[in-house]
Amino acid sequence: MPSADAQAVATLMAEADLQGSDGHGVIRLPQYLKRIRSGGVNLHPDIRVVKERAAMALVNGDNGMGHLVMKRAAEIAIAKARTAGVAWAGAQWSNHAGPASLYARMMLPHDMLGLYFAVGNANHLPPWGGLEMLLSTNPIAAAIPAGEEPPIVLDMATTVAAYGKVKAKAARGEAMPEGWMIDREGKPLTDPRRANEGFLLPIGGYKGYGLALVVGLLAGTLNGAAMGRDVVDFNQDAESATNTGQAIVAIDPSAFGEVAGFKAAVDKLIRDLRGSERLPGVERIFMPGEQSHERIVRQRKDGIAIAPQLVQTLDRLAQQLEIPPLRTN
Amino acid sequence: MPSADAQAVATLMAEADLQGSDGHGVIRLPQYLKRIRSGGVNLHPDIRVVKERAAMALVNGDNGMGHLVMKRAAEIAIAKARTAGVAWAGAQWSNHAGPASLYARMMLPHDMLGLYFAVGNANHLPPWGGLEMLLSTNPIAAAIPAGEEPPIVLDMATTVAAYGKVKAKAARGEAMPEGWMIDREGKPLTDPRRANEGFLLPIGGYKGYGLALVVGLLAGTLNGAAMGRDVVDFNQDAESATNTGQAIVAIDPSAFGEVAGFKAAVDKLIRDLRGSERLPGVERIFMPGEQSHERIVRQRKDGIAIAPQLVQTLDRLAQQLEIPPLRTN
Repeated sequence: MPSADAQAVATLMAEADLQGSDGHGVIRLPQYLKRIRSGGVNLHPDIRVVKERAAMALVNGDNGMGHLVMKRAAEIAIAKARTAGVAWAGAQWSNHAGPASLYARMMLPHDMLGLYFAVGNANHLPPWGGLEMLLSTNPIAAAIPAGEEPPIVLDMATTVAAYGKVKAKAARGEAMPEGWMIDREGKPLTDPRRANEGFLLPIGGYKGYGLALVVGLLAGTLNGAAMGRDVVDFNQDAESATNTGQAIVAIDPSAFGEVAGFKAAVDKLIRDLRGSERLPGVERIFMPGEQSHERIVRQRKDGIAIAPQLVQTLDRLAQQLEIPPLRTN
Repeated sequence: MPSADAQAVATLMAEADLQGSDGHGVIRLPQYLKRIRSGGVNLHPDIRVVKERAAMALVNGDNGMGHLVMKRAAEIAIAKARTAGVAWAGAQWSNHAGPASLYARMMLPHDMLGLYFAVGNANHLPPWGGLEMLLSTNPIAAAIPAGEEPPIVLDMATTVAAYGKVKAKAARGEAMPEGWMIDREGKPLTDPRRANEGFLLPIGGYKGYGLALVVGLLAGTLNGAAMGRDVVDFNQDAESATNTGQAIVAIDPSAFGEVAGFKAAVDKLIRDLRGSERLPGVERIFMPGEQSHERIVRQRKDGIAIAPQLVQTLDRLAQQLEIPPLRTN
């Protein structure tokens, strides 16, 4: 792909690892490469706005890398929010773009709030009471700037556990807690090696099902992107265009009042919550995104830790591609 | 209050009962009346837009009834979305407005999607790991128009159970299931009569805590409305202005493409989900809002069922106010 695009994607993948979203960073390179080699991704996409109003844009990603599509969508949302106060950019014909919070965070340097919704790239969730996996773990992210405190950054799948956590349990040979998955009889499933015999459970039962559905409608159906039965399982199929849908919202707090006052109120809220009385045995109350923030600060200083196994995988890929391996010493 | 305002509030309260949101309909009349008599609500508010851009407005409710404030906010959002594509209206100095879905639904007759966020009027939720109830059950609602199918309408508190459900269990002398509440030691609390010794649990644990916080930031802090420690418990205090914050978003699907195509896609999704294979023992897969829709259709025909106890309460209120009682035969 064009060098500037490669650099943009690589930067966003590194930022995913930087913030501790290990499951969405360079670990995805083998999968992305497989798709690229299979012709499943357009390396020279014409990413373009196909619909536009004062506070919205619909971006056609032309089956390019999702990172490029959503970076563009975020830039458009920020520019429009600056005049309209709030702006919404949806994407169609996009692809997997890494962790949701990466894009919600893009509003922070502009002193804006960011929201992000996406249709996941594989269906792992049946409707409530159902057996057919017609929904994905459709994530929600939100980023809210603070003053002196780190920003509040929420990044959550609408299932109790993201599928990556199940894979991690299997890799470590550990059992899953009850409440993560059920089997086809509706009974708790705790053996992660049997994950393909069951389903992830949505948060709050039918509530999480409703949230996953609404997120999918906003990020997928509204944009003319894949949702429900049309979702391409990108683990099984590296060739078909996924028509991934995502949506991003930028909110300019200066439209609502003084930005400094808003940030001070966020700081006060954070301090009230953090300083409040704790349950026995709890050492610290965290804000959403606080641990990621600490990871960013630490890894920016010390470098990003990557598992030796992943380094090996990446070096093998480099060899195949006849490019220099990672500097591992 | 002015007769037109009284009628608008009464209509929305009746619509709450009509859709089955019994806990937010006429059952609230005694509480509203208490606030009105205590001078806690402004009966002649100057509800006005204090900040405005192409895609947003901040509405100062002047401590009027929340129903009036959010009806106005919804109308503004719809009007702005018609040109801007998407519009966001926040409210400050508002009050309790009934069920969240009532306002998200207001977009449906305009063929728009609606989202609604609110700060609850009493804190029942501590931060994750905490003991101090600094957060409310901050609800989320979404309404999405379909074609031939009923609209998808989600209306959910960010706690596993809304506080009203706990009260209902206590009234019926039933135990709560584990997972609804914990006590101050972090142990499951199942006796609803001991509810004031414990806390509601957020959906998905720390995820629901994050959602409640983000909803509160969007609906409260961003609007300069109460959030966290500033929230007035309207069960304990009928006099202080609550400075309730709410936010409503209108999304015009015609900005994204053909409305008929969007609605047909929603219909197809609903039918795919409803018709999919079910868990053993499950008779039907419901869409969010489907049961409310059936209730609306049934009660519009047969009238709204009200518990005899509530009729008595309302008739006692009528007597005090020297107005005619309900026609109960």
